[in-house]
Amino acid sequence: MELKDILSKCDHTLLRPDAVWDEVRQLCDDGLRYGVASVCISPCHVSAAASYLGGRLPVCTVVGFPSGASSTAVKCFEAAEAIGDGADELDMVANIGWIKSGMYREVGQEIAEVKRICAKHILKVIIETCLLTEEEKIEMCRVVSDSGADYIKTSTGFSTGGATFDDVRLIKANIEPHLRIKAAGGIATLEDGETFLTLGADRLGTSRIVKLAKELEEGK
Amino acid sequence: MELKDILSKCDHTLLRPDAVWDEVRQLCDDGLRYGVASVCISPCHVSAAASYLGGRLPVCTVVGFPSGASSTAVKCFEAAEAIGDGADELDMVANIGWIKSGMYREVGQEIAEVKRICAKHILKVIIETCLLTEEEKIEMCRVVSDSGADYIKTSTGFSTGGATFDDVRLIKANIEPHLRIKAAGGIATLEDGETFLTLGADRLGTSRIVKLAKELEEGK
Repeated sequence: MELKDILSKCDHTLLRPDAVWDEVRQLCDDGLRYGVASVCISPCHVSAAASYLGGRLPVCTVVGFPSGASSTAVKCFEAAEAIGDGADELDMVANIGWIKSGMYREVGQEIAEVKRICAKHILKVIIETCLLTEEEKIEMCRVVSDSGADYIKTSTGFSTGGATFDDVRLIKANIEPHLRIKAAGGIATLEDGETFLTLGADRLGTSRIVKLAKELEEGK
Repeated sequence: MELKDILSKCDHTLLRPDAVWDEVRQLCDDGLRYGVASVCISPCHVSAAASYLGGRLPVCTVVGFPSGASSTAVKCFEAAEAIGDGADELDMVANIGWIKSGMYREVGQEIAEVKRICAKHILKVIIETCLLTEEEKIEMCRVVSDSGADYIKTSTGFSTGGATFDDVRLIKANIEPHLRIKAAGGIATLEDGETFLTLGADRLGTSRIVKLAKELEEGK
């Protein structure tokens, strides 16, 4: 796999709570230069980033992030606000407590409500694999497949663990064919990125791949 | 200081993203039994907890938690929803990126907007001390003092560090007299709790103090 093909699958990501606009602008510049899929940033930066990018690169942001424990009404409002601010793609966190309680119907309804607001905008659903049992992961493959969402995403990157090869394999084997996979959290090398894509991921949530491409270019 | 006096200052807290209702109900039961100031829970549990408690104990929840990087409109909507669901107190996270950019006017305006929605309900503002320089902490003492908020709170408990004695001392020395202090994050012993209160904190965000009281009662 060529470097540019891996880069084209990256949501170039900066979600640190203390990130400032200068860092977000640099992320946008790097995203444009290295041909990533999108920049993924916090909601408070969406408006400025969308205006700065002017449609040259999709803006991805997050909903109910990273806890997933806000109410459905708040997630819907947050989704509508983000789209109004210029976001092209939304990564929402599912309600993990509901998953742990077996309330899959409620989890699916919430995702469907947010998707209704997204309309044609891409919706990715973070299931935070590191907190789930294998049975819960498999159940969430079904729930997200049936929800209308576009992607199932492994991790926020702010919990106890990130994407693993085993999880992406398990997800690939249990989702409906129309649902795509985003692997995120802790992806640190080009080899890992390529392996996730080979295993069936269609997007990578990371900032490391662009950093590695930069270092290669600079001959480091 | 007697144990019951320390307990009466505790916001008995459960904000793990994967918390389920059975755990929240247990938290409420323990909160009632040990005479805490409030239970502090995720927004998705507020409605059930408020109904379960029926006014016997204040319900505290969070806004923009734990990143603080949602938009002002979303924080306001989330505050209104939480109050509508029955929350008595709100702990909001300030926009850390704005603080790091010196955008103190915007930070203060956002807090004031959320306070307007809170009206007589208590609003606490989390400044996430572990991410701030001493200068930024002092500046935030001024901003929160002037904002209309009721408390300044050290930490979310989900970042790189929690409350420290030095930070509570610094905050006490730099806030206006009407503003109260909540120390939160990593408070693990009765001695620590008492020290924070002696240094000027008026609330403690923790689940450990009730756990310790339980163990004392059971003679462990």
